Amino acid sequence: MEIDGTPYRTIWVETPGRSVGIIDQTKLPHRFETVTLASLEDAARAISDMLVRGAPLIGATAAYGMALAASEDPSDAGLARAYDRLYRTRPTAVNLRWALDQMRALLDNRAEGERAALAWARAAEICDEDVEISKAIGRNGLPLIEAIAVTKPAGEPVNILTHCNAGWLATVDWGTATAPIYMAYEKGVPVHVWVDETRPRNQGASLTAWELGRHGVPHTLIADNVGGHLMQHGLVDLCITGTDRTTARGDVCNKIGTYLKALAAEDNGVPFYVALPSTTIDWTVEDGVAEIPIEQRGGEELTRIAGRAADGQVVEVDIAPEGVAVRNDAFDVTPARLVTGLITERGVAEASKEGLAALFER
Amino acid sequence: MEIDGTPYRTIWVETPGRSVGIIDQTKLPHRFETVTLASLEDAARAISDMLVRGAPLIGATAAYGMALAASEDPSDAGLARAYDRLYRTRPTAVNLRWALDQMRALLDNRAEGERAALAWARAAEICDEDVEISKAIGRNGLPLIEAIAVTKPAGEPVNILTHCNAGWLATVDWGTATAPIYMAYEKGVPVHVWVDETRPRNQGASLTAWELGRHGVPHTLIADNVGGHLMQHGLVDLCITGTDRTTARGDVCNKIGTYLKALAAEDNGVPFYVALPSTTIDWTVEDGVAEIPIEQRGGEELTRIAGRAADGQVVEVDIAPEGVAVRNDAFDVTPARLVTGLITERGVAEASKEGLAALFER
Repeated sequence: MEIDGTPYRTIWVETPGRSVGIIDQTKLPHRFETVTLASLEDAARAISDMLVRGAPLIGATAAYGMALAASEDPSDAGLARAYDRLYRTRPTAVNLRWALDQMRALLDNRAEGERAALAWARAAEICDEDVEISKAIGRNGLPLIEAIAVTKPAGEPVNILTHCNAGWLATVDWGTATAPIYMAYEKGVPVHVWVDETRPRNQGASLTAWELGRHGVPHTLIADNVGGHLMQHGLVDLCITGTDRTTARGDVCNKIGTYLKALAAEDNGVPFYVALPSTTIDWTVEDGVAEIPIEQRGGEELTRIAGRAADGQVVEVDIAPEGVAVRNDAFDVTPARLVTGLITERGVAEASKEGLAALFER
Repeated sequence: MEIDGTPYRTIWVETPGRSVGIIDQTKLPHRFETVTLASLEDAARAISDMLVRGAPLIGATAAYGMALAASEDPSDAGLARAYDRLYRTRPTAVNLRWALDQMRALLDNRAEGERAALAWARAAEICDEDVEISKAIGRNGLPLIEAIAVTKPAGEPVNILTHCNAGWLATVDWGTATAPIYMAYEKGVPVHVWVDETRPRNQGASLTAWELGRHGVPHTLIADNVGGHLMQHGLVDLCITGTDRTTARGDVCNKIGTYLKALAAEDNGVPFYVALPSTTIDWTVEDGVAEIPIEQRGGEELTRIAGRAADGQVVEVDIAPEGVAVRNDAFDVTPARLVTGLITERGVAEASKEGLAALFER
């Protein structure tokens, strides 16, 4: 998408065979800075220090990490070390593992001299594939927005609520939850996005509001507490969120707080959609609440925050009583019964075993 | 309640007839500072600058403001000016108006020479009455906690979730939502409180976590997004919140986000109680969602936050993209159907027209 008029992806080749560029997402929304990754180690650190985040973008960065490694040391031992180094950065990220396995399968039985070129080509392909998946999600979700738009008085936008960042910054381009929104915007369908702040890491305020703003999509930042009230007053036409993991029966494990918005949507008859690449469906899990272990993260995510001080410097401040006990669950599970539909690259599925099976012929 | 072992109220006489003391709540949780109010103007500023907040405490401060005014200038004109000055500080605060009217009714037909003494006595009485109301709420709510405690394995606490600050800091002592909790704690019933951060003003993190911690009540700070997930996993035994305004049929207008927690409580079979002095019941309103106008506050409450920097200084930082549009609804309405019961100074009422009417014989 665009940043103040300039088209960007979240990862791109700077010097073919030598370096790739990324946006340092830890600096957003305070500073827009790009960073050059010129080595395996650079790529590994970009993932582990969360300069890049979002499952698809982590996968793409890992793929380029393997390409950078193949340029540095294409031996079997070198690639094995690279695989391990990258895998250890975020061992629970499904796309990371998938991208690394793709690269390993491709390179394993090839001559050392061929490996770098193959790796760079495959990494580029993985990025392009990700863009195609996002665009397919966008195309499949767009009619849901258009169907509401035709019911609105002229000039009134379709109001869409989203939670966390399932935007283009989390993917290579377009995003998942945002893909239908960007497509509607590009097509001239009036849209307006309610952006949940998304405590404790504030991905909504820091990333979603930033990327929508830079591209020009109308949006309003709200506290996570506000969405239900807006729905009670008819100010939300539909919700679209992303998901980190979807079960075979359509339960959705996503950023903490998603479940509360889904409850409010149900209580007010607001459609609640979840956008996802089918790679995030975990066919081995049925009951998300009972079966999915939820990552517990450090309390300082809630008690400490970075912001711009009056002098323009970005500083961290502590905002809670010193030494307070904190519980910080990173995700929650929204039961399928609260999900109106799953927007995938293959189409929109009912959030049920049957709905998903029909679309994916399993 | 106690602050690190020392008993406090939120407002107290320092020099009889001359000055009262308060806690500067704008400094919490970073610094504990008391402030002396030695004039009408001091009292008015304490209210308008929110050094004191919470309906009952605002009322008590206004009463002492009138007492300070009666000491300065007990003439009819002087008291009329004082009434106006104090009323203008927070014109929508029901308790403020009530306290001022109490003072005016008392002083109107008395000789100037008597007025100061009468005013100081009545202000003290208003404070004591507020404490009695909180204690009655506590006594009426305590059995709800005790009933759960007996079902728990030995040593396991009753887990209570609360939102915003309806604690002793919002009243003269004991609080409303916290009164049953403090009573249970004093009685040795094991309790543990999940404290919602309460964006955007963070009253949970700044005030509730602070006051529970200083008194010694076990508690854990959570993001507003977390409560539903905890309920799904059986980690919340009951919810108790306060309310700013309750309708004749039991709809509850409280801090934004209360509605989402009530939805989650209903979805998981967790009892959801609201504690209130009956003075906050608005018998003229039935349908809270349709009839209660919700205050819109400035966006900087969401985009700017104060915290302790590394050097110990309290600084304000901006945490959202520059110039982002913000919507900041201060309250929402929880429909009576989601409220298990209303804990009042007269007893626990069903959240319905019949339930409230039975308790208050209207």
